[in-house]
Amino acid sequence: MRAAVMYGAGDVRVEQRPDPRIQQPTDAIVRVVLSCVCGSDLWPYAAMPATDQGRPMGHEFLGVVEETGSEVTGVRPGDVVVTPFTWADNTCDFCAKGLQISCRHGGRYGLDGVDGGQGEYVRVPQAQGTLVRLPVAEDSPLLPALLTLSDVLCTGHHGAVTAGVARGDTVTVIGDGAVGLSAVIAAKRLGAERIILMGRHRDRTDLGRDFGATDVVAERGEEGMARVRDLTGGDGTGKVIEAVGTRQAIDTAFGVAVDGGTVSRLGVPQYNEGPIGPGMLMRNLTLTGGAAPARAYIEELMPDILDGSIDPGRLFDRTIPLDRTPDGYRAMADRQALKVLIRI
Amino acid sequence: MRAAVMYGAGDVRVEQRPDPRIQQPTDAIVRVVLSCVCGSDLWPYAAMPATDQGRPMGHEFLGVVEETGSEVTGVRPGDVVVTPFTWADNTCDFCAKGLQISCRHGGRYGLDGVDGGQGEYVRVPQAQGTLVRLPVAEDSPLLPALLTLSDVLCTGHHGAVTAGVARGDTVTVIGDGAVGLSAVIAAKRLGAERIILMGRHRDRTDLGRDFGATDVVAERGEEGMARVRDLTGGDGTGKVIEAVGTRQAIDTAFGVAVDGGTVSRLGVPQYNEGPIGPGMLMRNLTLTGGAAPARAYIEELMPDILDGSIDPGRLFDRTIPLDRTPDGYRAMADRQALKVLIRI
Repeated sequence: MRAAVMYGAGDVRVEQRPDPRIQQPTDAIVRVVLSCVCGSDLWPYAAMPATDQGRPMGHEFLGVVEETGSEVTGVRPGDVVVTPFTWADNTCDFCAKGLQISCRHGGRYGLDGVDGGQGEYVRVPQAQGTLVRLPVAEDSPLLPALLTLSDVLCTGHHGAVTAGVARGDTVTVIGDGAVGLSAVIAAKRLGAERIILMGRHRDRTDLGRDFGATDVVAERGEEGMARVRDLTGGDGTGKVIEAVGTRQAIDTAFGVAVDGGTVSRLGVPQYNEGPIGPGMLMRNLTLTGGAAPARAYIEELMPDILDGSIDPGRLFDRTIPLDRTPDGYRAMADRQALKVLIRI
Repeated sequence: MRAAVMYGAGDVRVEQRPDPRIQQPTDAIVRVVLSCVCGSDLWPYAAMPATDQGRPMGHEFLGVVEETGSEVTGVRPGDVVVTPFTWADNTCDFCAKGLQISCRHGGRYGLDGVDGGQGEYVRVPQAQGTLVRLPVAEDSPLLPALLTLSDVLCTGHHGAVTAGVARGDTVTVIGDGAVGLSAVIAAKRLGAERIILMGRHRDRTDLGRDFGATDVVAERGEEGMARVRDLTGGDGTGKVIEAVGTRQAIDTAFGVAVDGGTVSRLGVPQYNEGPIGPGMLMRNLTLTGGAAPARAYIEELMPDILDGSIDPGRLFDRTIPLDRTPDGYRAMADRQALKVLIRI
C-alpha cells in the first residue's frame, strides 16, 4: 500500500509500505477513504530530527472495514467507520470513566507497528472498542464533516466540556486553527451566549463567526488581553479554551480569565514550564483540559452532523489525493490552508 | 494598643500602635481574644527584606465587637465574632458566587492602613460582610477550634471541595502542616474512604491519623511518589491536595495523580513557573484550588465544631501571650510547634 511517512522536519514522503494484516484477534483492517493533516502534525513537521527510519503519519481517518479478527464484534466488513485519534479497548477502568485517551490497552497510530492514518490501509487494534460505525455510505457528502469526529471536533468539544461551558456563558477561545474553530462550534452547541474568538487570520475568524463567535480579537499578547477585558467589563471571561499550545497562548489564557475562572487547554504545549505561580493561586484559576478522549464524544456529536445542526466539514478548505500529502503539510505549515483533507 | 509588626526576615516585634478607630460607616472595631501564626506568615519570616516601616502581622483572629460604624448591621457590640482571613462585602458578584477572596471591595489584614490580627484591636472594614457571629461566650473552650474557621480549616476544606472529594474517594494530602491536616479533616468529613497523608513529622502525621488519614507516607520526592503509587495499585489517586507550596510539593502532586485526576493547591507557591508541559496535557490532569474564600465556608463548618464532630483545635500545640509572639514565629519556623495560638 502507499502511505505518508515523515523522515524529519519538512520531509514527508508518500511511499510503498507493507499491506497491514490482522495480527491480533482484536484487530481490524480498514481501507481508508478520507484522512487529513492535523495541526499537531505540524509540530514534528517543524522540528523533528532527521531519521532514516521514518514515522508513519496521520491519526484521523475514516473508511471501510475490510477484515476483522476473530474477537471483533460490533463492526463488520463493509461497515463505514470512523476512528478516534487513539485506539482503545473501551472497557478498561479509564475508558469506563470516559478517558479513553488513557486506555490501559490503547495506543497511538503510527507507533509500535501500527499504521498511520495517512495511507491506504490501517490495522486498527482493539477494533471493537475503537471503531464507530457511521450510518452513511462511503460516498456520502457528509463524510468530511464526520471525519472531524476523529479528532478536531471532539477535541474542541473536550475543551468546552472541561471548561464547564453551559447555557448563557461567555467564553474566550484562543486560536483560529481547526481546533479553536471546533471549540467555537462546541461552545455554541453547549449554549454559550457570547464567544470571543482570538485569532488574526481573517478568513478563519470569519468562519468562526459563521460557527457562532460573537466577537473577534485579532490582537495578541498584552494588547489582545486588554481587548478581551474591555469587551467584558474589565474582568475577562469565566471560561477560556486555549487551542494553540504556545507559551504566549497559555499566558494569554490566564490573562483573559476572570478570578475563579477555568482555562481549558487543548493545544499541545510547546513549553515544559508554565505560569502557575502565586497569581494563579490568589485568583483561584483552574487549569484543565487535555488530550481529548474522542471516543467518549463521537456518539453524542454525530447526530448533530447527520441532521445538519453543525457543519464542521467546512474546516477543510483544501482536498488533495494521498500522493500530494507532502503538499498538504506545506500548505498548512505556511498557513495557506486551514485543514487539508486527503482523499485516498 | 500592642500589636505584632514584622520588620524583615526573622524580625517580629510586639510594639505600641495607635488604637484603631472607626473610619468608615462599614467598619467595626474588634477586641481580639485569640489570634495565631499562619504557615503563610513563615514565608516573609524567612525572606522579607528589612524595612523601617514594618508590616502589621496576622490575619486569623476572633474576638468581641467593641464598636460598629453606622452602616453595620448583623453584628453588634458584645458579639463574639470570627473573621475570615480577608475582609469582604459579601454582596458583590464575586462574593455572590462564593469567591469572597476576590471581593471587589475587599482586602487583606495588615495592609492599606488596616490592622493585623496579631494585636489587641483590629478595625475590620466591611464588617457586616466579613464578621460571623459565634454562638459561644468569649471564654468557651471551643474558641481555639472556632479560630480555625478564620483560615486553616476553611483552606483545607477549599482544597477538598475544589479537588472534588466525594464519598468513597481515595485522596492524597501532601503536607503535614496545619493546612494539610485540615485538609485531612475536610476530606474525611466529605466522605473520603482512604486518605494518604504525605509528611515526615511523626507527631503531626499521628495527629493526621487521628483526623482520618488511613496511610502515611514519610518519604519525599521520587521515593514518596513511588510509595503512593504502590499503595494505590500503581496508579496514584484521582484527588490530590497540595498543602505545602514548594516546587517539590507540586511536582509530587502531579506525580501521585492518576490520569484524569485533580490536583488542588493550597500552599502559597514559592515558584513562578511549574510543570504544566505536554505530560500534564496528555494525562488530562487538572490543577485547581487557590486562596480559600473562607467566608463562604464558615457557616457550613461551624456546626461540626460546635457539636464536636471535628476538633481542629488540636492543631494548636502551643499557646502564648501576645508579647511572646516573636517566640511563636521562631517555634513554628523551627518546626518546634505545629501552630501557635496567641491568647491576647
